Amino acid sequence: MHGAVIHGAGDVRYEERADPVIRKPTDAIVRTVATCVCGSDLWRYRGVSPVSRPVPIGHEYVGIVEEVGADVTTVAPGDFVVGGFSPSDNTCPVCAKGMQANCLNGGIYDGCQAELIRIPQADGTLVRVPGRPDDALVPGILALSDVMCTGWHAAVSAGVAPGSTVVVVGDGAVGLSGVLAASELGAERVIAMSRHADRQEIARSFGATDVVAERGDEGIARVQELTGGIGADAVLECVGTEESVVQALRATRPGGTVGWVGVPHIAEIPQDLMFRRNVGIRGGIAPVRAYLDDLLARVLDGRIDPGRVFDLTLPLSEVAEGYAAMDERRAIKALLIP
Amino acid sequence: MHGAVIHGAGDVRYEERADPVIRKPTDAIVRTVATCVCGSDLWRYRGVSPVSRPVPIGHEYVGIVEEVGADVTTVAPGDFVVGGFSPSDNTCPVCAKGMQANCLNGGIYDGCQAELIRIPQADGTLVRVPGRPDDALVPGILALSDVMCTGWHAAVSAGVAPGSTVVVVGDGAVGLSGVLAASELGAERVIAMSRHADRQEIARSFGATDVVAERGDEGIARVQELTGGIGADAVLECVGTEESVVQALRATRPGGTVGWVGVPHIAEIPQDLMFRRNVGIRGGIAPVRAYLDDLLARVLDGRIDPGRVFDLTLPLSEVAEGYAAMDERRAIKALLIP
Repeated sequence: MHGAVIHGAGDVRYEERADPVIRKPTDAIVRTVATCVCGSDLWRYRGVSPVSRPVPIGHEYVGIVEEVGADVTTVAPGDFVVGGFSPSDNTCPVCAKGMQANCLNGGIYDGCQAELIRIPQADGTLVRVPGRPDDALVPGILALSDVMCTGWHAAVSAGVAPGSTVVVVGDGAVGLSGVLAASELGAERVIAMSRHADRQEIARSFGATDVVAERGDEGIARVQELTGGIGADAVLECVGTEESVVQALRATRPGGTVGWVGVPHIAEIPQDLMFRRNVGIRGGIAPVRAYLDDLLARVLDGRIDPGRVFDLTLPLSEVAEGYAAMDERRAIKALLIP
Repeated sequence: MHGAVIHGAGDVRYEERADPVIRKPTDAIVRTVATCVCGSDLWRYRGVSPVSRPVPIGHEYVGIVEEVGADVTTVAPGDFVVGGFSPSDNTCPVCAKGMQANCLNGGIYDGCQAELIRIPQADGTLVRVPGRPDDALVPGILALSDVMCTGWHAAVSAGVAPGSTVVVVGDGAVGLSGVLAASELGAERVIAMSRHADRQEIARSFGATDVVAERGDEGIARVQELTGGIGADAVLECVGTEESVVQALRATRPGGTVGWVGVPHIAEIPQDLMFRRNVGIRGGIAPVRAYLDDLLARVLDGRIDPGRVFDLTLPLSEVAEGYAAMDERRAIKALLIP
């Protein structure tokens, strides 16, 4: 089979790789229907995170079960499935608390931007989609594999509730998903911070009531204007840079919370913006499995269409162009079809 | 009148000071019935926080209103009152969100370890205690001025709810108050980390179900044993040192939250213990006014006795000994009577 392998900064190749095989009785093999490039993949593509040797890459997928291990009982060959970016058994004490990203018995994928994928902990990881969904629904289901559930985790972690005022920092696929999550969770005001017209448009279609294009002091001043002079109840940090984390903390009112899901690449957490201001930070790697059933139902009944974050579709063989387009901000998120 | 003035590390003096006067129509003057020394006062006493010039000190009190400014309507001379360590108008947009410690129009006290105290924003700050409470209730009411509400804020910030497992780091007056708060908020298991027999005993009387005397790796191992191997849902950080903040974060399960109220004296927040573990931090300076009515009712009807944290009572003139006793850990908290 073929799949994407990252060799170094700016160097993603579509290569022949060995077909994955069942290694443990809890594994399954899935034939990919669609996969995609994640903003977090760009940390390595941009050289921010080092790549010491060529490694298969990608962690999002929907597909059809090809084979299952002896212990797998909830999915069978032929099932259309979606799974989160982080395998989990969904039964350990941490999973029982709804924190499947920190599963005590989780595993890792060997690169999901590929024609075939080995799924560890298949029973706990995969969710069966009834029948064979219409092609038009595939992007929306694929978005649940990471970005939509990650945006949802930001909103849940920040304590978004009916009536909340919310600021979303970051207008990538996760930030836009965070706008949709905040809106679905009943936020009264959802302020998207975005400078790009196309992303602003998606943000509005996802429920943003306001868009703030300014950054830094001006951006904070605009947020203050929109929040009665005190900042937002909940702020979703969907980037992970120093600038965005500071922006998020500053945009939060006393007693409010930043829900952070952008993998932090920061020297340190600015504690001067926290304790004395009574501003907290919660969140981390999203427990996709905790949200998957609920959000899949919303996608299947047409209530939400998180697949709108995909604005570029390519053959999987052109995966390198998907990275380049996202790196150069020509695309929000690239969907890849084997 | 007389009051305490800190001149430098280890140097607190009881001195003659000018009587406070009404400066703004929203001020009141209170004649102190009881005041006390706070763990946070020790940062300066121990030289951790510098003292550049002699300043009056103290921020906790109960007393009787002596005089009110022209705009004060909710209290009158003769009323027995308690107020939080941080004045607030209780009407600004931040106060309306329940974050009175960050009041947009707050003020500061000019040292409450004194015979008379000027109270800024008297209407928003002071709560009238019906009648003249029995002497036996005074310590419990005084504890609401800071430590009990601070422990409560830790528990609320950490999301303590019925059925929670809770760890309390710190066995000072705030930590012990945190144990009481967690218990009152319905926690199923409250693990107090304490090495001192007398404090352990108070912790148990406040509702601790378990006491862990170990610290560091051993302390964490004990917490894991008591929490099904995953850590606690909520951890109250009631100290503020590097060691205690790390202990608190490590004791928290994935998806759990540290409620921090110990003024942080740390180089940086250890982010490696947060994002990837899905462990958050919330809290800060406690909004005493938000909790005062509720907790005062619990004290007056005998449901809780947070005054048990006072294990030393001195005449106010011996305030220096109160500091020394707390610094040398001979006392948990010193109550001072003018």
